[in-house]
Amino acid sequence: MSRVYNFSAGPSMLPEEVLKRAQAEMLECGDSGMSVMEMSHRSKDYDKIIKGAEALVRELMNVPDNYKVMFVQGGGSTQFAMVPLNLATKHKAADYIITGQWAKKAAAEAEKYIKVNKVASSADKTFSYIPKTTAKDFSSKDEVDYCYICYNNTIYGTRYTELPQTEATLIADISSNAMSEVIDVSKFGLLFAGAQKNLGPAGVVLVIAREDLLGEPMEGTPTMLTYKTHADNDSLYNTPPTYAIYILKLVLEWIKEQGGIAAVQKVNEKKAKILYDFLDSSKLFKGTVVKEDRSLMNVPFVTGDSDLDAKFVKEATEAGLVNLKGHRSVGGMRASIYNAMPVEGVIALVEFMKKFEQENL
Amino acid sequence: MSRVYNFSAGPSMLPEEVLKRAQAEMLECGDSGMSVMEMSHRSKDYDKIIKGAEALVRELMNVPDNYKVMFVQGGGSTQFAMVPLNLATKHKAADYIITGQWAKKAAAEAEKYIKVNKVASSADKTFSYIPKTTAKDFSSKDEVDYCYICYNNTIYGTRYTELPQTEATLIADISSNAMSEVIDVSKFGLLFAGAQKNLGPAGVVLVIAREDLLGEPMEGTPTMLTYKTHADNDSLYNTPPTYAIYILKLVLEWIKEQGGIAAVQKVNEKKAKILYDFLDSSKLFKGTVVKEDRSLMNVPFVTGDSDLDAKFVKEATEAGLVNLKGHRSVGGMRASIYNAMPVEGVIALVEFMKKFEQENL
Repeated sequence: MSRVYNFSAGPSMLPEEVLKRAQAEMLECGDSGMSVMEMSHRSKDYDKIIKGAEALVRELMNVPDNYKVMFVQGGGSTQFAMVPLNLATKHKAADYIITGQWAKKAAAEAEKYIKVNKVASSADKTFSYIPKTTAKDFSSKDEVDYCYICYNNTIYGTRYTELPQTEATLIADISSNAMSEVIDVSKFGLLFAGAQKNLGPAGVVLVIAREDLLGEPMEGTPTMLTYKTHADNDSLYNTPPTYAIYILKLVLEWIKEQGGIAAVQKVNEKKAKILYDFLDSSKLFKGTVVKEDRSLMNVPFVTGDSDLDAKFVKEATEAGLVNLKGHRSVGGMRASIYNAMPVEGVIALVEFMKKFEQENL
Repeated sequence: MSRVYNFSAGPSMLPEEVLKRAQAEMLECGDSGMSVMEMSHRSKDYDKIIKGAEALVRELMNVPDNYKVMFVQGGGSTQFAMVPLNLATKHKAADYIITGQWAKKAAAEAEKYIKVNKVASSADKTFSYIPKTTAKDFSSKDEVDYCYICYNNTIYGTRYTELPQTEATLIADISSNAMSEVIDVSKFGLLFAGAQKNLGPAGVVLVIAREDLLGEPMEGTPTMLTYKTHADNDSLYNTPPTYAIYILKLVLEWIKEQGGIAAVQKVNEKKAKILYDFLDSSKLFKGTVVKEDRSLMNVPFVTGDSDLDAKFVKEATEAGLVNLKGHRSVGGMRASIYNAMPVEGVIALVEFMKKFEQENL
């Protein structure tokens, strides 16, 4: 056995150092005499872990003091309901930009509760670009409670490089680019990220929200889907996903050791450049996204021949480069190269692609 | 360092064999070349894990074929909303028996959506007993959609030994006694259990529900709080808490190796008898619960002197018997002796209590 390069879109690779630390502490963490999984969430030992995780989020992302940091459950899909239920209480309306399946799902869930204005969409070209918008495309802050975007689109491999010029509070799903690049938290009302891409294992969602937005939700909102419940109780209203938060903390410590998010971003830009440069020069493979909107995290590409795509995925798997099959809505291949993917992994992929190209062109 | 006997009410002890297996597989599980935490929830490797977990639930609990087994997020507290939102769609009313804080919270959450009849309560004596009821205490099935109980009360240390004679569908929170004693699933419409006591780590809830109950929920129910969403997608509508489900599967394999739930129940009865027999003979300590309703899992006891209680907890901790402090609403001590607590742990506790009694009486 040996560890593979795992290009999964999520859950995805974790830093080997993190896994080794978790392995070493599995039966006894520190001098607690127990596994983190066995710790009461109300114990002093666990309190250090969850408070430590929050402190690292604040430090690494430079979170302003008037923002709450929360760890909640239910994935991004639960956020799709929590955002309108908690934040659209005044105008009961919001703008959504449709840049892929996840933005579409978020909008559909919001439509259960509020008026949704789909102000822009890139559905016409299989979401292969970020729609260009200007200030006048958006509703005023007297008409909507917020404007919602998906910052990086995991399936389609696009990302925002400039934020939309909206007057209303900006809300973003940052599940697939959280802590992979510097994000100015102060430009947003609320950010959320499922951990299973850049932050840790599945089962915990990081939410960062401006305090003044966390008031009473719509009537009938379940207690557990009320941000205030979690904000007022430091994510300890009920038992949180304790072990997932512990792993998240180890991942954040690793990011800090790498030099923080700006340093990690440089490595990510280097990794992405290696792969995109090859795609741009290749005679067999080509990227599916317009150049200016290319994601640093998710890189879809195709040969144009679905049989050849399948052959590539199969042979890559045999070579220890796994989970390269593209999403069914795009086809072809997708390489997700999150923080934990080392530069060596991307180089190995490109070398393999070169060899495959020579053999199959 | 050495492992302690951890009497925490939850999260709580896990079998050492399970932790060792998780430790061994942390960097590479099977021939996958990756940690379970890194596996795509859509991969073949992970499919074996989640399907294996479901099969073990069905086998161990003898789940009838017309029941769905689901793994969801959000803890019991989210179930408090999901139960009425999904199951009280016809009469918009339900009976609740109030046997402690968790039943009370469940009823309060249900009151947001439906008429709640509190048909019985043991609040008058700090929930130290299970209220006796007869068939005529309950609403008819033409008046309510279900009757809700908390099967084992973690905080107060009581449990049902006979189920209430209700005509309406019985729903039970079995968070603290799931798989610790044989439960006849066919007597219930829905059972749920937060994993962090007998089944695994925090962050996953096991739900077992009769298929015909899983129809359309009330209008406005979030997609993620709709049982049908999870039932129709084999708990893979979105990314489930993959690692928590993996550990749960290892715990169920361990239960099977012990001889199944009936065999584990025998050990639990033996452990409880050792502790209760000592409490009944002690001149210093006494149990707080009426004998016939005593829990096999959670054993609250007091000396009657809060200073002495504090001294006991402190000295026990120093002796490696940890998390014995009682819940603030009962005071004194509480020993939670879930499946993973070995008989030796209970014997060590009783020996320590005897010594403390000699020194302090």
